[in-house]
Amino acid sequence: MATKADRVKARLPRGFVDRVPEDLRAAEKMIAEIRKVYELYGFEPVETPLIEYTDALGKFLPDQDRPNEGVFSFQDDDEQWLSLRYDLTAPLARYVAENFESIPKPYRSYRAGWVFRNEKPGPGRFRQFMQFDADTVGAPSVSADAEMCMMMADVMEALGIKRGDYVIRVNNRKVLDGVLEAIGLDGDENSGKRLVVLRAIDKLDKFGPDGVRELLGKGRLDESGDYTKGAGLDEAAIAKVIDFTSAGGATGGETIANLERVVTGNDKGVEGVVELTTIEALCSAAGYEGRVKIDPSVVRGLEYYTGPVFEAELTFDVTNEKGEKVVFGSVGGGGRYDGLVSRFRSEPVPATGFSIGVSRLMTALTNLGKLDTSDNIGPVVVLVMDRDTVSLGRYQKMVSDLRQAGIRAEMYLGGSGMKPQMKYADRRGAPCVIIQGSQERDNGEVQIKDLIEGARLSAEIEDNVTWREGRPAQITAKESDLVTEVRKILEAQAEDRANAAKAV
Amino acid sequence: MATKADRVKARLPRGFVDRVPEDLRAAEKMIAEIRKVYELYGFEPVETPLIEYTDALGKFLPDQDRPNEGVFSFQDDDEQWLSLRYDLTAPLARYVAENFESIPKPYRSYRAGWVFRNEKPGPGRFRQFMQFDADTVGAPSVSADAEMCMMMADVMEALGIKRGDYVIRVNNRKVLDGVLEAIGLDGDENSGKRLVVLRAIDKLDKFGPDGVRELLGKGRLDESGDYTKGAGLDEAAIAKVIDFTSAGGATGGETIANLERVVTGNDKGVEGVVELTTIEALCSAAGYEGRVKIDPSVVRGLEYYTGPVFEAELTFDVTNEKGEKVVFGSVGGGGRYDGLVSRFRSEPVPATGFSIGVSRLMTALTNLGKLDTSDNIGPVVVLVMDRDTVSLGRYQKMVSDLRQAGIRAEMYLGGSGMKPQMKYADRRGAPCVIIQGSQERDNGEVQIKDLIEGARLSAEIEDNVTWREGRPAQITAKESDLVTEVRKILEAQAEDRANAAKAV
Repeated sequence: MATKADRVKARLPRGFVDRVPEDLRAAEKMIAEIRKVYELYGFEPVETPLIEYTDALGKFLPDQDRPNEGVFSFQDDDEQWLSLRYDLTAPLARYVAENFESIPKPYRSYRAGWVFRNEKPGPGRFRQFMQFDADTVGAPSVSADAEMCMMMADVMEALGIKRGDYVIRVNNRKVLDGVLEAIGLDGDENSGKRLVVLRAIDKLDKFGPDGVRELLGKGRLDESGDYTKGAGLDEAAIAKVIDFTSAGGATGGETIANLERVVTGNDKGVEGVVELTTIEALCSAAGYEGRVKIDPSVVRGLEYYTGPVFEAELTFDVTNEKGEKVVFGSVGGGGRYDGLVSRFRSEPVPATGFSIGVSRLMTALTNLGKLDTSDNIGPVVVLVMDRDTVSLGRYQKMVSDLRQAGIRAEMYLGGSGMKPQMKYADRRGAPCVIIQGSQERDNGEVQIKDLIEGARLSAEIEDNVTWREGRPAQITAKESDLVTEVRKILEAQAEDRANAAKAV
Repeated sequence: MATKADRVKARLPRGFVDRVPEDLRAAEKMIAEIRKVYELYGFEPVETPLIEYTDALGKFLPDQDRPNEGVFSFQDDDEQWLSLRYDLTAPLARYVAENFESIPKPYRSYRAGWVFRNEKPGPGRFRQFMQFDADTVGAPSVSADAEMCMMMADVMEALGIKRGDYVIRVNNRKVLDGVLEAIGLDGDENSGKRLVVLRAIDKLDKFGPDGVRELLGKGRLDESGDYTKGAGLDEAAIAKVIDFTSAGGATGGETIANLERVVTGNDKGVEGVVELTTIEALCSAAGYEGRVKIDPSVVRGLEYYTGPVFEAELTFDVTNEKGEKVVFGSVGGGGRYDGLVSRFRSEPVPATGFSIGVSRLMTALTNLGKLDTSDNIGPVVVLVMDRDTVSLGRYQKMVSDLRQAGIRAEMYLGGSGMKPQMKYADRRGAPCVIIQGSQERDNGEVQIKDLIEGARLSAEIEDNVTWREGRPAQITAKESDLVTEVRKILEAQAEDRANAAKAV
């Protein structure tokens, strides 16, 4: 026990959180569903460590302008710099480059894992969070990108998100690059400016076209008084960019026609539109029309994308912290990053992939009631009435027998007294408790107290016909019949739950 | 594509490894089995982040004498020190202290997670590895320790390790403390020396009684010429310690009688023996006799244990790197650590728990053939014979239909040519490939090539009677019957595998 002076304060650093049982069970359920879809598409798991050489990760964080900002880094004992990974794409690129000869190509893989951002945490913004990625390396054609989009759509439906409540939005960086070329922003010397334009467009959802116009021009002053410097484009250039972002039409064909107009005469842009046309055709052929949609306003904030980019958006409304109705928005995205593996190699290596934000998607699914874990039953609690070794041995035998029969059970391990034991059983959501005092022990009997029946609120049940007659809330049973009797109670409770679910 | 000069080398820091599909699938299988046992015992999941305040973790690493050695640490932007967790116990203590009012007590919880040690890596020794822990906080009685031992035993059997091939060995630090008191090593001023004695005893498996004698006395020179300074005990004290470690008898009763002799007259030691007697009685009452054994040679290298300590040992022989037959040894352990939560609080908080080394246990299970993942089937590969959008759309529709039917399938995404496609399908372990050239497309047909049937080595099958007649290795089917025909092939292959397994 610590004296006051040397007592350590139990606390977590900002931006880190503990995960409680409901979250863990829900996340596990969700991850299992996502994994099933990835496996169905032929993807194989692979996992890299959480620590990498800093130079192997590169500097590909969105919205980070200073090098190494945003990354947790430290020096190894040989002075080399190590970093905690900030996403799962950079480590995959390292893995593929390192194992290039031994992996089958094209290489489809998936992984879920923790990533770290050393940035200011905020609401729903953590310094450790989980991503669940899928990537295809070594497939140059847009068939691979189309597959990514369809797989994302299938993930959404596997998680119970209804058709119409989500959309996979696709765009192509080549089209944007064509537009940028047309307004004179090509070449290495303009890479910084291109990134500013990219990030300006990425704010379309947040600030609307007028806000983006400001960010593309002189700059934007937000409500809090913060000023964001703009890209400094002239009116004609701004109009061209805005033209591009607002090229979305009522149908895919219409959008493509609009885009064709925007890129007329620019080879790169035309190539991008052709790719989008192919993606549209492949997705339609496989029955994904309307689920995967071309949308020129999608750009993704990352610099390393080189072709198609996509975003999974949930289109239903939720109420935000300010009480406003807003579209739920993005739960993941990705794109083609043909240059990332090539950093390590003397040959070009095409790659495409996407990343799901696990926490954000969990929030969405919880909103939709799709991550219900109420089927998780608390343990049967064997109360401790007497504390001599012989009695404890008997209680221990009971829990052991229940577990042997596959029934979750525990012997109470806290202090004495009936009240704290019952309170504990209640806290744990125990379906029933087992009681054996000296008299029951002498008779070779146990009392089984049904805690759910005891607390049952018949008022909530609408349909009385489907509701069976009440059980006794407590029974006396032979000790040798313990497992059988507990099982009966568990089955009756399961039936009640099923009836209640039907009745609601 | 990188020029030679600025090309980054794709490599991992020492002591970190990538995990391939077989490992991941095997680990997942194993972790699911362990989790089932923990849940059956009423334990609830809880997870803490990978980063904590350095002071909240404390310095409780085994075999680390310099502060902070062994831990990856770095400063936050507010100058506070953060560390990657080096085990799951210290973070749990922080979690419990921080959430003390809101958790049910006694609090049974479990968690699997990565931990980090900043030490020299070696064979089977990594700087990132996974532990799977279970802990009970707030239960002062040794019933909780007995439960830990029984749960470890159940975990071993749930993983398919036969009774007799494992043993849970139990000892009690209080008995050792009694012995140390008896030889004058009590008091804060001797804490360093006590730790040296502890670690000497912990080396019993490795160096035998004579080696431990040296470590307890002047010191020990090992074969490589490295000298380890000893505890500097005199002959009588050494004899007393060795007496304690060799007190194990043929039965639990005999061991207890031996220990009683060793601790005669020392209150703490007597208390320890009484606790061991209770653990023995509880485990026997629940049917764990012989599976949980009192063994005075177990001490565990960690300083923070305050009562019972336990170790799960696999007792079967394996061949080590040098070709010698050795007992597989420890795969996990733990003990009571009543002081760890109290570091944060003004009240004593009893706790006990154990930790399984996931990688080490996986090695053991792989040796035993218990982590077979050969039931994982590769994807059906739809070959790409023509690359126009219409043909690609047809192929895309086929994989889409197969997946809809729950069949793992992919469209080939690499370069052209039949040979690389067939090679790829082979590498992926595809059960069959689908071929549709222009002629089949015109006829509304597909070719299905059964890759397993093609490669079948009937020679390996002993029992010819159970072996059905060979299937054709390639069939032509109507495109509309694709799913039905593929399913037939998969079912026939599953039957073959089952027959082959029976025949071997």
